[in-house]
Amino acid sequence: MKYYIGIDLGGTNVRALLVDANGETYSEVKESTEKEQGPDYVYTKIVRMIRTLDYDACGGFENVRGIGIGVPGPVDTVKGVMIMASNLPGFEGYPIVEKLKAEFQKPVFLDNDANVAGLAEALLGAGKGYPTVYFITVSTGIGGAFIVDGKLVSGGRGHAGEIGNIIVKPGGYKQGALNAGAAEGECSGTAITRKGQAIFGDAVKHAGNVFDLAAKGNEDAIAIAEESINELSTLLANIAHTVDPHCFVLGGGVMKSRDYFWDTLNRQFNEKIHVGMRNHIPLLLKKLDDCGAIGAAMLPMSQLGDE
Amino acid sequence: MKYYIGIDLGGTNVRALLVDANGETYSEVKESTEKEQGPDYVYTKIVRMIRTLDYDACGGFENVRGIGIGVPGPVDTVKGVMIMASNLPGFEGYPIVEKLKAEFQKPVFLDNDANVAGLAEALLGAGKGYPTVYFITVSTGIGGAFIVDGKLVSGGRGHAGEIGNIIVKPGGYKQGALNAGAAEGECSGTAITRKGQAIFGDAVKHAGNVFDLAAKGNEDAIAIAEESINELSTLLANIAHTVDPHCFVLGGGVMKSRDYFWDTLNRQFNEKIHVGMRNHIPLLLKKLDDCGAIGAAMLPMSQLGDE
Repeated sequence: MKYYIGIDLGGTNVRALLVDANGETYSEVKESTEKEQGPDYVYTKIVRMIRTLDYDACGGFENVRGIGIGVPGPVDTVKGVMIMASNLPGFEGYPIVEKLKAEFQKPVFLDNDANVAGLAEALLGAGKGYPTVYFITVSTGIGGAFIVDGKLVSGGRGHAGEIGNIIVKPGGYKQGALNAGAAEGECSGTAITRKGQAIFGDAVKHAGNVFDLAAKGNEDAIAIAEESINELSTLLANIAHTVDPHCFVLGGGVMKSRDYFWDTLNRQFNEKIHVGMRNHIPLLLKKLDDCGAIGAAMLPMSQLGDE
Repeated sequence: MKYYIGIDLGGTNVRALLVDANGETYSEVKESTEKEQGPDYVYTKIVRMIRTLDYDACGGFENVRGIGIGVPGPVDTVKGVMIMASNLPGFEGYPIVEKLKAEFQKPVFLDNDANVAGLAEALLGAGKGYPTVYFITVSTGIGGAFIVDGKLVSGGRGHAGEIGNIIVKPGGYKQGALNAGAAEGECSGTAITRKGQAIFGDAVKHAGNVFDLAAKGNEDAIAIAEESINELSTLLANIAHTVDPHCFVLGGGVMKSRDYFWDTLNRQFNEKIHVGMRNHIPLLLKKLDDCGAIGAAMLPMSQLGDE
């Protein structure tokens, strides 16, 4: 059995795990990030956490094959640095991979949290056994990851899967720096909440409230839900025509309301894809919980292969 | 040096080539397809053509490493059969790969003509040296191919790259079985010609006429050109967010009018992509001519790797 270290470096907490190739966890450390102390401080914390893990299960640290790190934001996977780090001030361009490599003399890989979660789902979760998997999380934002033969396709600038910016409604709502009518502005949890609050005010706290109202027959809520699911199905169809994945794996908070929209989403998606693909691309539900650190540990596994 | 056979099986002609890993051609045979004679007849013709090639350059047929075939329509790359074959009646489900394998005792690979052309561009043409390439042809239709580390991503049902069906204008023109507002119905050569003929009648024979009129300052033509290029830039941006390719390679008849729209297309594309990708994904022009058979020969090379 081969062993890997996964680091889930978030804006709030850092988790470090020792796992094997099946994703089984042998040791875990969790600390608050204290990001306001700056990247050198956080880096030193990560080094200490890696040293704190218990390596008895694998017969010592020397048997660890590599280290993977998941971070909140796009990364340059070649240089091993974050490109934007709005949630981790100072980490933009910070040579975390280079430093960890020098410190531990092991292969180190970095990718963003959506990619890392998608990798975990593809290798160990709902997408296990499918040659290609497109993972999509519909939550506050919309993010994705494309996994081919067990490896992430990160893209030239680590932006593969930045599907929240795909235009599903030209001239539609403009959210922040995204395109007008981008998926994230039209069918994310935030978008559905916004549409709901415009009609129902404070009665809507999150997207789930809109779907609950729709389920009770409220026509305004039904209209919002139908429009949003229609746009989500357009997003899925556009991705399907670009890469024809063997399956989609869907996660994120909005999926909690899937009982309301799952059949509609499936039907619309299949209506919008090429006849030769119809009913051949299953939409699967995310299986793993809290898989950021496990997914990070899968980065070296997927990159180093079986050699 | 390693040697491969490429077969470009079109609705009109069949070409067979013997090439090396650099795409240099040593022997070529071309015949008309005579598709109306049915698949067994065409298959027998292909076998004869393969036998007719001159193998002196590689020291005999036994030194050929594999055979690749490009066909007009989506294929099941795992089963090695065409899924739809409107241009080659009878070839839907016809076990051409299995039969050629049995006949010649070599690895045989099948893919569609857009994928095969994209593979040639990625390995030998404009995309050479880029880790990932998204190839797009804007012609009568719109097709594409995604190449990662020198290998085609064909997808679960061979439909990766069927980007003509991506929705760029919800509720837009419905062409044939495609989605309303699909790219092929909005910004292909056929679409631009249709829009032009609606205003200029027979004066427009093809998309190039519309761009010529626009270049002369005709405002109706300018409006058609701008709308179409806007939609093409949306298509490119949507694909970029899905896979973040290291470059796009653009080909097809519409590119003959690129002098008119190239700068606009680049500007709009960059405006529509995530800030972290901006000016990092070059739009390149297709380099190779008539690369179907060479691309087909690259199929075994890309699939078999260097072992």
